Amino acid sequence: MTKTLKAAVLGASGYTGAETVRILRNHPHVDAVAATGNALAGQKLSGIFPHLGTRNDLDVVKAEDVRWDEVDVAFGCLPHGTSQDLIETLPSHVKIVDLSSDYRFRDPSAYAEAYGREHIAPERTASAIYGLSEHAAEQLKGADLVACPGCYPTAVLMVLLPLMKPMVIDKDAIIIDAKSGASGAGRGLKEGNLFCEVGEGTHAYGVGTHRHTPEIEQELDLRAGLSDIEVTFTPHLLPMTRGEHVTCHLRGDVDAVHSALASAYQGQPFVSVLPLGSPPPDTRHVRGTNDCRIAVFPDRAKGRVIVIAVIDNLVKGSSGQAIQNLNLMMGWDQALGLDALLPLFP
Amino acid sequence: MTKTLKAAVLGASGYTGAETVRILRNHPHVDAVAATGNALAGQKLSGIFPHLGTRNDLDVVKAEDVRWDEVDVAFGCLPHGTSQDLIETLPSHVKIVDLSSDYRFRDPSAYAEAYGREHIAPERTASAIYGLSEHAAEQLKGADLVACPGCYPTAVLMVLLPLMKPMVIDKDAIIIDAKSGASGAGRGLKEGNLFCEVGEGTHAYGVGTHRHTPEIEQELDLRAGLSDIEVTFTPHLLPMTRGEHVTCHLRGDVDAVHSALASAYQGQPFVSVLPLGSPPPDTRHVRGTNDCRIAVFPDRAKGRVIVIAVIDNLVKGSSGQAIQNLNLMMGWDQALGLDALLPLFP
Amino acid sequence: MTKTLKAAVLGASGYTGAETVRILRNHPHVDAVAATGNALAGQKLSGIFPHLGTRNDLDVVKAEDVRWDEVDVAFGCLPHGTSQDLIETLPSHVKIVDLSSDYRFRDPSAYAEAYGREHIAPERTASAIYGLSEHAAEQLKGADLVACPGCYPTAVLMVLLPLMKPMVIDKDAIIIDAKSGASGAGRGLKEGNLFCEVGEGTHAYGVGTHRHTPEIEQELDLRAGLSDIEVTFTPHLLPMTRGEHVTCHLRGDVDAVHSALASAYQGQPFVSVLPLGSPPPDTRHVRGTNDCRIAVFPDRAKGRVIVIAVIDNLVKGSSGQAIQNLNLMMGWDQALGLDALLPLFP
Amino acid sequence: MTKTLKAAVLGASGYTGAETVRILRNHPHVDAVAATGNALAGQKLSGIFPHLGTRNDLDVVKAEDVRWDEVDVAFGCLPHGTSQDLIETLPSHVKIVDLSSDYRFRDPSAYAEAYGREHIAPERTASAIYGLSEHAAEQLKGADLVACPGCYPTAVLMVLLPLMKPMVIDKDAIIIDAKSGASGAGRGLKEGNLFCEVGEGTHAYGVGTHRHTPEIEQELDLRAGLSDIEVTFTPHLLPMTRGEHVTCHLRGDVDAVHSALASAYQGQPFVSVLPLGSPPPDTRHVRGTNDCRIAVFPDRAKGRVIVIAVIDNLVKGSSGQAIQNLNLMMGWDQALGLDALLPLFP
Repeated sequence: MTKTLKAAVLGASGYTGAETVRILRNHPHVDAVAATGNALAGQKLSGIFPHLGTRNDLDVVKAEDVRWDEVDVAFGCLPHGTSQDLIETLPSHVKIVDLSSDYRFRDPSAYAEAYGREHIAPERTASAIYGLSEHAAEQLKGADLVACPGCYPTAVLMVLLPLMKPMVIDKDAIIIDAKSGASGAGRGLKEGNLFCEVGEGTHAYGVGTHRHTPEIEQELDLRAGLSDIEVTFTPHLLPMTRGEHVTCHLRGDVDAVHSALASAYQGQPFVSVLPLGSPPPDTRHVRGTNDCRIAVFPDRAKGRVIVIAVIDNLVKGSSGQAIQNLNLMMGWDQALGLDALLPLFP
Repeated sequence: MTKTLKAAVLGASGYTGAETVRILRNHPHVDAVAATGNALAGQKLSGIFPHLGTRNDLDVVKAEDVRWDEVDVAFGCLPHGTSQDLIETLPSHVKIVDLSSDYRFRDPSAYAEAYGREHIAPERTASAIYGLSEHAAEQLKGADLVACPGCYPTAVLMVLLPLMKPMVIDKDAIIIDAKSGASGAGRGLKEGNLFCEVGEGTHAYGVGTHRHTPEIEQELDLRAGLSDIEVTFTPHLLPMTRGEHVTCHLRGDVDAVHSALASAYQGQPFVSVLPLGSPPPDTRHVRGTNDCRIAVFPDRAKGRVIVIAVIDNLVKGSSGQAIQNLNLMMGWDQALGLDALLPLFP
Repeated sequence: MTKTLKAAVLGASGYTGAETVRILRNHPHVDAVAATGNALAGQKLSGIFPHLGTRNDLDVVKAEDVRWDEVDVAFGCLPHGTSQDLIETLPSHVKIVDLSSDYRFRDPSAYAEAYGREHIAPERTASAIYGLSEHAAEQLKGADLVACPGCYPTAVLMVLLPLMKPMVIDKDAIIIDAKSGASGAGRGLKEGNLFCEVGEGTHAYGVGTHRHTPEIEQELDLRAGLSDIEVTFTPHLLPMTRGEHVTCHLRGDVDAVHSALASAYQGQPFVSVLPLGSPPPDTRHVRGTNDCRIAVFPDRAKGRVIVIAVIDNLVKGSSGQAIQNLNLMMGWDQALGLDALLPLFP
Repeated sequence: MTKTLKAAVLGASGYTGAETVRILRNHPHVDAVAATGNALAGQKLSGIFPHLGTRNDLDVVKAEDVRWDEVDVAFGCLPHGTSQDLIETLPSHVKIVDLSSDYRFRDPSAYAEAYGREHIAPERTASAIYGLSEHAAEQLKGADLVACPGCYPTAVLMVLLPLMKPMVIDKDAIIIDAKSGASGAGRGLKEGNLFCEVGEGTHAYGVGTHRHTPEIEQELDLRAGLSDIEVTFTPHLLPMTRGEHVTCHLRGDVDAVHSALASAYQGQPFVSVLPLGSPPPDTRHVRGTNDCRIAVFPDRAKGRVIVIAVIDNLVKGSSGQAIQNLNLMMGWDQALGLDALLPLFP
């Protein structure tokens, strides 16, 4: 079968851009035909990311130099702000799967508040599909503009959405302690991303103020039909490259929680809800894959439940889910190009 | 000044044993004169731990081969169970600073429940001093038997004890998410301690069931004058060697919490309560030292407070605090031998 | 197309066993149908290696409980010694691809000297095919017993074999400085494999005495038609899980060396000889793949050449090459099941 | 005793600057009284390096704002080039201990060739003392300007200098394979220093061209009374923060080599030449200290010797040796302020 879809990767010099190109290599129906970058335009992609190799190499070009008439879909792998500025200039026949935060807020003023700038296309963000794949399969079909959830919201919402309706937990006592590897912060040249500042230690960041919190609350409210859910969300940087681990401290009945999760994801190829009594899942178990593993634990303290989810932040948390979303947009099997990804352990 | 105290280290082949020997090297009044081990008796300590070097080397001997009449104090660096079995055979003139969990429970039946065996000296555990140094200075003076807190309880109680009386937080909503480096699990040959099983990933363990939870609750109850405090305590293994980070998700007023902590530790040489608004502390900032740094953060969600504490699990979390306790037992400056430890960064 | 070959994995509880199972998941013609283990017999493979998941799970059984009449090929993933003891009991219709060192020596007495025990099937080791895939394609066709090279010899010989005939380097000045991640040492419970003993440091081992040296020399002699080649081979343990890096310090002409390598591997799907002037290759560039990247550098000192090769020790250095060898034994495309492995970076 | 010497640290925002401040905290005769920085002037040093804490905090100021009349000695912790530009402006009463490469070359044209710029004070570099402490004790006494060796040359020359006269090795077959942690590259914001680019992998750099090679050759020639020694020097970046490991592949007699080293360092407090037959030294054994451990190994191949040295690149490889040099300049015990540094393991 010939590959039917031509894809451009916007911002191919970052980790999510490279990961998108990497995964598409195995996709039976999609070819990456263009890679954009500003500072690095003129280079080969294999020069920027030697692991991608020189076979099927791409030239990195400025976005305006892409032959857009030959492109069917664009993956937005740019920082927020930059993303909308480019995406809004693209011809309308190009389907958009955006990995930035630019189209995640259904209310443009929430975006403005969280990100400190007005959205340049407020009606577009309001109508974009929020692509948490397992929860948006129907809306994704035929969609033109999809906003992929942030890596943290992906893991958190995979746990919490199925618990919202019926509400099987105390909605006023949701506490999420999250841990991420350093690739979640991207390839930017910041002191906090240096090996010597990340290795052999850990710290929290964005305590009480992280911008993924309102994104999480938006989706919980929507699902629950409420408008006042508040969660505590505290992320930590761990001395590892890939992997995201969320520990959700909840109040509720352990069996009700487990059963809501198990039935929500029955038959889903990428989500495993472990049987009660299983050992805790590990980010190693999903490294390099689009998988999400979820486990439910009773606490010694009565009425409290702990739910843990692990994903690879660069796959299910970004590029993998983006491709899963494209599959769903096209009406294909959602696992295309993704089920060949095997977890790399050790 | 001649060194006045002779110390034996029980179980010198583990990490806390080696760390005790290492720190004592710089102590002006204490000499490590004996190191015990069973499997490794007959070897030089420098053969087991090359970093300790051959100067001032010690022979590792069986406990029965120590000349106890020449020993003033013993540091118990053995696993629980093994520790009491040996300590109860020592002559009564030997002061004991035990780093195991064997003498931490004031109620022997709580020990039996948590550790699955009867205590062989129940009255001794009941009367031992629980040596969280900053909170036990008075009781430690002249004590003969001191139980050092576990590494997790150390960090957690440094945060929570000052909040108990007056109770400035909601005692029914205490949630502790803890993270530790692998040295907390010791030098035991377990699959879970292998480099390939710890590196580049993370997982929780003991979820809902960890044995440090009742130890924490015991001390909270005692301080608060209550008997029913229940905490959620969820530890995680991080891909790093040293360092412990506890994130306490609490309900209360951020100023009241900060002020209770700041006044509790004013003038303490090893504890820093960071000003409100400081960046989150990092385990790197205390690596290799007896320091504890604490920071308080308001949450977006009203009425919630997040308190973070970081320590080095092998120093303040075990060997360093043990030596601090000895200093207090002897009526010395509590910082002797410890203030020369400088944080190793990067 | 139905899968035509049934494979057993001997010693499925080690890293190379798990990696073999993992890679076979994507192989179009081979199914792993049996997994053996002694200590762990009775367990599910997914219990021992949770990353493998419960789909297509295997029961780990003792070797004697495998239904050998339904097995076509066995991958030997056992330690040396143990491997021959089992392999020599298997029915003769079972093709063997052994990853241990047991059948690598063409001279049984060389085996005995290096490994300290007599070989139980000396004529079998003498006739086994030494499966450095790119250099043994012809002999592998139809072979029944293949000995896969050690991980270090794989990387080293990929560099040195093409330089032997004609001899374009000084054969008396071959110095190999090698570096490996900890997975090369397997999953054994040894102190030296613990996270705290591997992380944040490095050391050499087997200095002047490593058992891979005679294996390397055997193949160099054979290729060169000589019997006296001596190499210096010094391996180092690095604080990483996967990856092997060999730095070959040679004497010769840089262009002659590069050209011998480039022509040896022209058209090979898994080997890249980088153009002169390229940046040094990195183990990250091949992680999780069967690739080998080789680069040649002139030294400031005249007449000296430095050649670097990188592989993933668990793939090209063991399980991947084993499957590549099976492909060649069966006359299939050597890349089957292996070309879907994409390098995991970051 | 009051501290008698006031020190300024030039370039206090880099790792060697911070390490110098850290070690001086324990020095009985030296106080760090000034810290310079350009971009970060106006900040507290504890804000830039939180591990240094707020006790004895320093204001970071521009160099021109230091009260130089109150300063006795300056530690140059700046990049090459920048270092000489500042040092040459300082008043002449200020003794200089420079950690950059600016004053290491005795021949200014060698500097120009290696570093691509003319030296602004050629006669000064020609007369500076090359401060490899153990080999320069006499010249250091009373010196005004000391150039500390690079971290690699330090480890390499500790091995090779004692072998030069009498020449107990083949001077035409010196091959040095070196490995360093990422802190050797400093705190600069370069892609190659990011956690995701350093962790879980390794690569060589500066292959055949590294600027430490001519520095090494200069000192070997000088010691040997020759002018044509050429060494192969190949450094590798390892996924760890601190630690430097050099593997010297030499030709000579193992006993002669060991004996030359053992007698060269007899009685030296920071150098251990391990007995023949010892296990290989590990960078962990010297982490955080000014120690250097050296071990000698026979190779299987006749006439070849392997010598390994390990240091902490930030201590013996830079800040520690700088302070050792100051001690020697002042005629003090060379171990002042340094012998309290205990190796941090695990």
